[in-house]
Amino acid sequence: MNAPARLQGLLSPVLTPFDSDRRPDPDRFVRHCRWLLQQDVGLAVFGTNSEAASLALAEKRRLLDALLEAGLPAQRMMPGTGACALPEAIELTRHAVQAGCGGVLMLPPFYYKGVSDEGLYRAFATVIDAVADPRLRIYLYHIPPVSQVPISLALIERLLKAYPGTVAGIKDSSGDWNNTAAMLQQFQPHGFDVFAGSETFLLANMRGGGAGCITATGNVNPGAIMALYKNWRSHDADAAQATLDATRAAFARFPMIPAMKAAIAWKTGRADWAFVRPPLVELTPAQQQDLQAALSAVDFQMPNASMLA
Amino acid sequence: MNAPARLQGLLSPVLTPFDSDRRPDPDRFVRHCRWLLQQDVGLAVFGTNSEAASLALAEKRRLLDALLEAGLPAQRMMPGTGACALPEAIELTRHAVQAGCGGVLMLPPFYYKGVSDEGLYRAFATVIDAVADPRLRIYLYHIPPVSQVPISLALIERLLKAYPGTVAGIKDSSGDWNNTAAMLQQFQPHGFDVFAGSETFLLANMRGGGAGCITATGNVNPGAIMALYKNWRSHDADAAQATLDATRAAFARFPMIPAMKAAIAWKTGRADWAFVRPPLVELTPAQQQDLQAALSAVDFQMPNASMLA
Repeated sequence: MNAPARLQGLLSPVLTPFDSDRRPDPDRFVRHCRWLLQQDVGLAVFGTNSEAASLALAEKRRLLDALLEAGLPAQRMMPGTGACALPEAIELTRHAVQAGCGGVLMLPPFYYKGVSDEGLYRAFATVIDAVADPRLRIYLYHIPPVSQVPISLALIERLLKAYPGTVAGIKDSSGDWNNTAAMLQQFQPHGFDVFAGSETFLLANMRGGGAGCITATGNVNPGAIMALYKNWRSHDADAAQATLDATRAAFARFPMIPAMKAAIAWKTGRADWAFVRPPLVELTPAQQQDLQAALSAVDFQMPNASMLA
Repeated sequence: MNAPARLQGLLSPVLTPFDSDRRPDPDRFVRHCRWLLQQDVGLAVFGTNSEAASLALAEKRRLLDALLEAGLPAQRMMPGTGACALPEAIELTRHAVQAGCGGVLMLPPFYYKGVSDEGLYRAFATVIDAVADPRLRIYLYHIPPVSQVPISLALIERLLKAYPGTVAGIKDSSGDWNNTAAMLQQFQPHGFDVFAGSETFLLANMRGGGAGCITATGNVNPGAIMALYKNWRSHDADAAQATLDATRAAFARFPMIPAMKAAIAWKTGRADWAFVRPPLVELTPAQQQDLQAALSAVDFQMPNASMLA
């Protein structure tokens, strides 16, 4: 059996739709994933923007199973499986690998702060050794603004040496281009795929030899982002990047997750798309008005949004 | 049925012993809890210093059940039940309340940063409303150096107004005495028990009308801390506080959790007491030597340590 093709291009941390009791809605989740795949966007389900931290392990298992039962291709999936408690990270990672997922995106344990690289090495190694499956591909998830637990270049080097092939890449959500550039230079040539953590750095990452990007706004603006990914060598790529940046900025005036959900609620006419779980809060009616005005002033389309309704 | 007496005095976030595969050892856990109770220390199991974030929900349920099956008194227990995913916080809180625990210590959801008081209010309210049990007593857990998600005075005020009796108090691990003093002044007179987050503030907290303290070093130095709690009005209380501070400082030269476990391993002769789960790391042999020297130079005794062996 050949290994499946490596994940690349544009992936989105898939928003998790809730019902009015704030329970995940697997039906809308499947439809949203199908819409993303139709636009060639890979499924980084259970990311930060999926409110994955707010989902119980059992809920994540059921949502992943719903995608598989609906016949969506596991090789296009990169579920987030990191957890503070390693037995839970192991359980979800094993489930994802056995389902044939193209990879998993793994946060370090994020409760304890100021931990050592040795401790983080042991955390990742514990999961890899416990899953013990040659099909496993781990993408490290570096998002210090949220996790407050960074993944250093030295840690990456050590993991890549110990687990070549298994440690397959990274999502860099540091917002620090110098860090992304260093990873592109040091690790991308050694089979370690660097994904920008937002489309803000998509063009720079492609020019630096990176693999693509994994970005929240892929949920709402996939067409334009994918167009730049496909045409990053074209003469008007910088203008396309500027257009993407303007659209992202319209969302980023608000808390991103509620804003993206409000945009889908607006475009689909389904108010329940706006629901978030605490500690997040839905946009107020005034914020929704402001968002709609902001999005109307930039390049923002959601073709076939009826698929999500 | 009368409500049980409210928790007060000294509680300890009980260290969680692991075996060589880093699985929790319920037998040593029960013995450690029994030793603490013998010295009148309450059981704040599943706290930060318990490595609770590194334990799966199922592991926490089994450890709590082990204490109950061993006949330890639930009314002396204040298990940590907060979680990023509210369904998991609800499950463990419900289990603790049905078991008769004196209270639960609740972290806010701690993955998302910069969240609003409204969102945190909804998080706590969701758990309280779902558990829906008049026996529930929630102690809020304010530990911004680790959680990075503070619990503001305004949030406490709102929760206390909405859920009097249920919102029963707080552990203040901010390390900021001004914050503790403000809570003592504003909330302690209204049936909201303020626990200092370490014995460093034990004397000040008692003088300010507080309920006691919940402190990591209760695991290893319970006798002296309890003595100050009982005699805080005595003329030599300041000297006793200084002695406690010196002992704590000896531990705090090292990462606290591995250091406390190493001290128990030393005093019991059981090397497996030193084990921690990643992302934490055991002390090196050199650090162990340094710790033993530091502890030998201060007031440090572990009477009946053989109970833990």
